[in-house]
Amino acid sequence: MAASAEQDSLQTISCTEPLREVRIIDQTCLPHRLVYRNLNSLDEACEAITSMRVRGAPLIGITAAYGVYLALRTGDRDWEGACQRLRQTRPTAVNLQWALARVSKHLAGLPATACELAALNLARTLHEEDASSCSRIGDHGLRILQTLWEQKQLRNVDSAAERLNILTHCNAGWLATARWGTALAPIYKAHAAGIPVHVWVDETRPRNQGASLTAWELGQQGVPHTLIVDNAGGHLMQHGQVDVCLVGSDRTTAGGDVCNKIGTYLKALAAQDNQIPFYAALPVSSIDFALMDGISEIPIEERDSQEITHMTGLNAMGEQSSVLLTVPGTAVSNFGFDVTPARLLTGLITELGVVAASSQGLAGLKEQGAQGQN
Amino acid sequence: MAASAEQDSLQTISCTEPLREVRIIDQTCLPHRLVYRNLNSLDEACEAITSMRVRGAPLIGITAAYGVYLALRTGDRDWEGACQRLRQTRPTAVNLQWALARVSKHLAGLPATACELAALNLARTLHEEDASSCSRIGDHGLRILQTLWEQKQLRNVDSAAERLNILTHCNAGWLATARWGTALAPIYKAHAAGIPVHVWVDETRPRNQGASLTAWELGQQGVPHTLIVDNAGGHLMQHGQVDVCLVGSDRTTAGGDVCNKIGTYLKALAAQDNQIPFYAALPVSSIDFALMDGISEIPIEERDSQEITHMTGLNAMGEQSSVLLTVPGTAVSNFGFDVTPARLLTGLITELGVVAASSQGLAGLKEQGAQGQN
Repeated sequence: MAASAEQDSLQTISCTEPLREVRIIDQTCLPHRLVYRNLNSLDEACEAITSMRVRGAPLIGITAAYGVYLALRTGDRDWEGACQRLRQTRPTAVNLQWALARVSKHLAGLPATACELAALNLARTLHEEDASSCSRIGDHGLRILQTLWEQKQLRNVDSAAERLNILTHCNAGWLATARWGTALAPIYKAHAAGIPVHVWVDETRPRNQGASLTAWELGQQGVPHTLIVDNAGGHLMQHGQVDVCLVGSDRTTAGGDVCNKIGTYLKALAAQDNQIPFYAALPVSSIDFALMDGISEIPIEERDSQEITHMTGLNAMGEQSSVLLTVPGTAVSNFGFDVTPARLLTGLITELGVVAASSQGLAGLKEQGAQGQN
Repeated sequence: MAASAEQDSLQTISCTEPLREVRIIDQTCLPHRLVYRNLNSLDEACEAITSMRVRGAPLIGITAAYGVYLALRTGDRDWEGACQRLRQTRPTAVNLQWALARVSKHLAGLPATACELAALNLARTLHEEDASSCSRIGDHGLRILQTLWEQKQLRNVDSAAERLNILTHCNAGWLATARWGTALAPIYKAHAAGIPVHVWVDETRPRNQGASLTAWELGQQGVPHTLIVDNAGGHLMQHGQVDVCLVGSDRTTAGGDVCNKIGTYLKALAAQDNQIPFYAALPVSSIDFALMDGISEIPIEERDSQEITHMTGLNAMGEQSSVLLTVPGTAVSNFGFDVTPARLLTGLITELGVVAASSQGLAGLKEQGAQGQN
């Protein structure tokens, strides 16, 4: 399949034999340069997550698992301490906690000499599981897009030039996962299936993951797309230019509230106001069944003010350069995520199927998810 | 009053005696440098509007009136041609059309030799009228803020440290008008009246008028403020951090739909979802009584894609520099405005008072406004 063939050579994270080097795409260099970077220690794994060289809920979890392996490889036997440090790197995404809980359960009781290899094997398992989950998310989401496309064609019998317009926010593509992506997986599968998809890519301030990652990623896969500012989605929806919204989720509550990149909530409101379906795509591992009310219960990461006051790009010399946008000393508030209440979601697309964003819809997933891990 | 004393030395546009030079603050240089620029011809006036050296619906109208004077001053007698050219500079704001209609009415039938001085006098009249309108908008809006502040104090009897949190989008301050501003006028008056206002300033992509103009302007007047990305307002509203939203309007229909900077609609949706009052502040001259449905009837300006693909700021050397954010050739869509339906507005704050955003609310204004111009 074209979409995945291209990506085969572009691994967000990998651990090669025989050297067992953990290698990542340094996403802070995109879209201007494709830079690979080896992670050689727990410190480097933590730094890669904190500074968002790797980002996206699923990829953070996988990187954390490799991080434990890296700690053990350098002779450190305190894998619990390593887990503890990795847990602190990003507060909002629950995959990180979930992956480290899997590591803890896997290593607990093993003899110290066996832990290094066990940690590596578990990281590889999580890695493969995520790729497989994302592919299945893509399959389930593809059916939604197929139906919407068929409905659109029925409504516009005369317009052969029509396309299916999908709006996405931030990057929930293969750069955020082991492969395929979450929100973008259905889009890649639809593109490969011949549905004329077109993606409105929200810039996603302040870190511009839409402009620098999603647009680049869609370009690599040959998927038609148009970059817009985060302010523009409502206008496009009012004018019939959006058929469906597809976003990822960093943490979903047992009640179906979706915590995702800041600004997602505003797009969900606009989708509701214009009767446009709004889906979040996510692996079951990113559901936090311990929480019900996302707005009051999910801790929202606050990040550095420089992400807002400065912008990095290529200067006229083609060099990466940062410019100051504000008066020095301007007070800034920089929350990284917001919560979209379950009532605004049409459904959740998971590897186990599409469910309603509600306690009832998620209860079934919890059972199936638990079985799958046994 | 402190708020206006500071501004006395900072005139967005002025025409001094005896040389009658039309001088503007070049807003494209803010917030890093305060640069004044003389406009010497119709061409320069048109360029100043098109390239947004002056912007904001009221200020565009005033600049256009001075532009007709500049055309006549350089010996050109075709004031109708000058009006025609100025009318094309920005399609969305209606003040431009309104101001040029006033000019036409004023000059029609005058002997050619009298037109230059008549055009200058009319520009000065529009200039003074706008300053006076904005001051009255400030007075009417102040009463709303006073009431909200009293209500908030009653709810939080224990919290002396509380403040009144106002969210604004783009720049509808004195930089957008002859003086005071529209949305910011009530804030300046409330600040001067001792109400502890604090303003959440939306960055306002793609041209960052919030980050570069509103934050700077509020800083000049000593008003506490915090810069946020456009994505953040919904999250703040969900968490009780916004007491009221105040925005400007580039064109308001007879039915009360408000066309303002792109992204305004998304904030209005979030305000409604969180039961937060949402007001637009505007002079009656920006109401287009010929239109009813803003979404289908107001032409929305599309601007250059470079506004999204590039960002300008100060580099490490302190020089103004532009950086490229995207892969070269990325498709971009850049609509400048969106329409907030009347149903999402708590009210419209005008120089003639606060009215409902509805046909009924606006009908009274039309009558009063027409009388005021006779």
